[in-house]
Amino acid sequence: MKIDGVASRTIWLEPDGWSVGILDQTMLPHTVVRKTLRTPEDAALAIKTMQVRGAPLIGVTAAYGVALAMRADPSDTSLKHTLAFLAEQRPTAVNLRWALNDLQATLASLPPKSRAAAAYARAAEIADDDVETCRRIGVNGLRLIQELANERPGEPVNILTHCNAGWLACVDWGTATSPIYQAHDAGIPVHVWVDETRPRCQGSALTAFELAQHGCVDRLTAGTAGAPACGDVANKIGTYLKALAAHDNGVPFYVALPYSTIDWSIERGADIPIEERGADEVLRVQGRLPDGAVASVAISADGTPARNPAFDVTPAKLVAAFITERGVCEASRDGLLSLYPEKKSCAA
Amino acid sequence: MKIDGVASRTIWLEPDGWSVGILDQTMLPHTVVRKTLRTPEDAALAIKTMQVRGAPLIGVTAAYGVALAMRADPSDTSLKHTLAFLAEQRPTAVNLRWALNDLQATLASLPPKSRAAAAYARAAEIADDDVETCRRIGVNGLRLIQELANERPGEPVNILTHCNAGWLACVDWGTATSPIYQAHDAGIPVHVWVDETRPRCQGSALTAFELAQHGCVDRLTAGTAGAPACGDVANKIGTYLKALAAHDNGVPFYVALPYSTIDWSIERGADIPIEERGADEVLRVQGRLPDGAVASVAISADGTPARNPAFDVTPAKLVAAFITERGVCEASRDGLLSLYPEKKSCAA
Repeated sequence: MKIDGVASRTIWLEPDGWSVGILDQTMLPHTVVRKTLRTPEDAALAIKTMQVRGAPLIGVTAAYGVALAMRADPSDTSLKHTLAFLAEQRPTAVNLRWALNDLQATLASLPPKSRAAAAYARAAEIADDDVETCRRIGVNGLRLIQELANERPGEPVNILTHCNAGWLACVDWGTATSPIYQAHDAGIPVHVWVDETRPRCQGSALTAFELAQHGCVDRLTAGTAGAPACGDVANKIGTYLKALAAHDNGVPFYVALPYSTIDWSIERGADIPIEERGADEVLRVQGRLPDGAVASVAISADGTPARNPAFDVTPAKLVAAFITERGVCEASRDGLLSLYPEKKSCAA
Repeated sequence: MKIDGVASRTIWLEPDGWSVGILDQTMLPHTVVRKTLRTPEDAALAIKTMQVRGAPLIGVTAAYGVALAMRADPSDTSLKHTLAFLAEQRPTAVNLRWALNDLQATLASLPPKSRAAAAYARAAEIADDDVETCRRIGVNGLRLIQELANERPGEPVNILTHCNAGWLACVDWGTATSPIYQAHDAGIPVHVWVDETRPRCQGSALTAFELAQHGCVDRLTAGTAGAPACGDVANKIGTYLKALAAHDNGVPFYVALPYSTIDWSIERGADIPIEERGADEVLRVQGRLPDGAVASVAISADGTPARNPAFDVTPAKLVAAFITERGVCEASRDGLLSLYPEKKSCAA
């Protein structure tokens, strides 16, 4: 999608052919800062400090982190260490483990000297694949928006999206926002409500920013993305409350997700590990001072303790449907298996 | 309750016998700033800009605002103008209209020269009455906490409170926090979860501050305060979502409220006027810079529009009970009438 009028991705290979460029999302919407990752430690830090965030983008960044490691040292020890090191940066992100498992399967059987090239190739494939997956999620979600638009001709379709499940969370298009961008491009008037999400204000800081940059209707868009398993959905904290409110008011709550977000090994939402992040994210807020400088301010009294679970789990009963790259299905293991029949052997 | 170890109220008559002191709550928890109100315009500004906030405290401040006006000009025109002017500062606050109606009833039939003294006396009575009301809410709520404590001896009672319905919202004790302070003082271990509340961060800025100042267990307390009518409850936005989550998880959701918050004229929650506040409160956050200076930072891209409804309405079906100064009752008109039988003539 666009930034300053130019089509961009959130992650790319630099012209030198080996280092990896990212947008530093901790500086958005205040300044557009691009960073270069040159080591697996750079990639880990970008994931840990949320310079890159969003389940799909975390997975792609981790894949490039493995490629950077293989370039420096393609030994078995290096591969094993890098996979374990990157995996521990964000415990709830299903795509992170998915991408690392994929890289392990791709690289383990290769001779060390072939690993770097294979890792770069696979990381690029995962990135391109995510773009295509998100585009298809958009096509499938667009049908739902089109149905709503047909019911009330001339009226904008109202969509609320929680946190940022936009292209900034992916490589391009986004998950929850992809149907919105597609609807916008198809000329359907869409009104997107972007909710505030503390502690990192990603609704106002990221989603509102990316929609505006793409020229979408100004304060409106989109669904929700998540990391589901069995139909329950782990997503940015606060999602469960929005889902309860939607259910209590007869408003459908959709979850848009790529196949790499589905964890087939988890039986119940209660078994999803929930990441606890630092208290400072709750106790401080980052923003722009009147002179344009970006500063972090403390909003609580010194010494105030805080808990900061990054995700909550929305039970499947509150989810109207999943929107995936293969179609729309019920939020259940059976629903997912109807779209991914090859996974039947994984199901309990 | 205490600030810096000294028992304080949120509003008081200054030693000069006529000007009115308040804590400027927009500066908490960063600095304790006291301000002096000398005119009804000062009182209106304090209410409008939320230097004083919380339904009961708004009512007391408005009463003193009328007293300040009567001191300067006790004419019928001045009285009428002041009542209308103060009423429009916060449309959802039931206590504001309640206090102004009370002052009108007290003053209208008096000769102008007696009005100032009568207004000061009545404002002081309303303040003292609020303290006693909140203390009794605490005594009635304490019983509920004691029952929970008896069920699990030795374990702390976990309470979550939304926004600030503490003594900073009242004159002393608070509504939702009063049972917590009473339990703390009675030696019952209480663990209070103070949730974040955007846009003004009053959970972390005010509730955590006042609990810590009083020496309460550090990150814990409370229930919820509101402006109900018929059993539905208008309260700080986000309350409805917490009530839905409590209901979905079998956790009782109590609303602590003084009689002055009950609007007997409203039949349905949907009829409660909801105040829309400025977009800047959503788009900016106030906090402390590293050098201790208090600054406001912009968290969204320039030009981002925002809606800022200050309250939401929680339906009675989600409320386990009301805790008032007269006792605990069902969240319904019948429940309230069992405690306030003298209001039967007001009920539909």
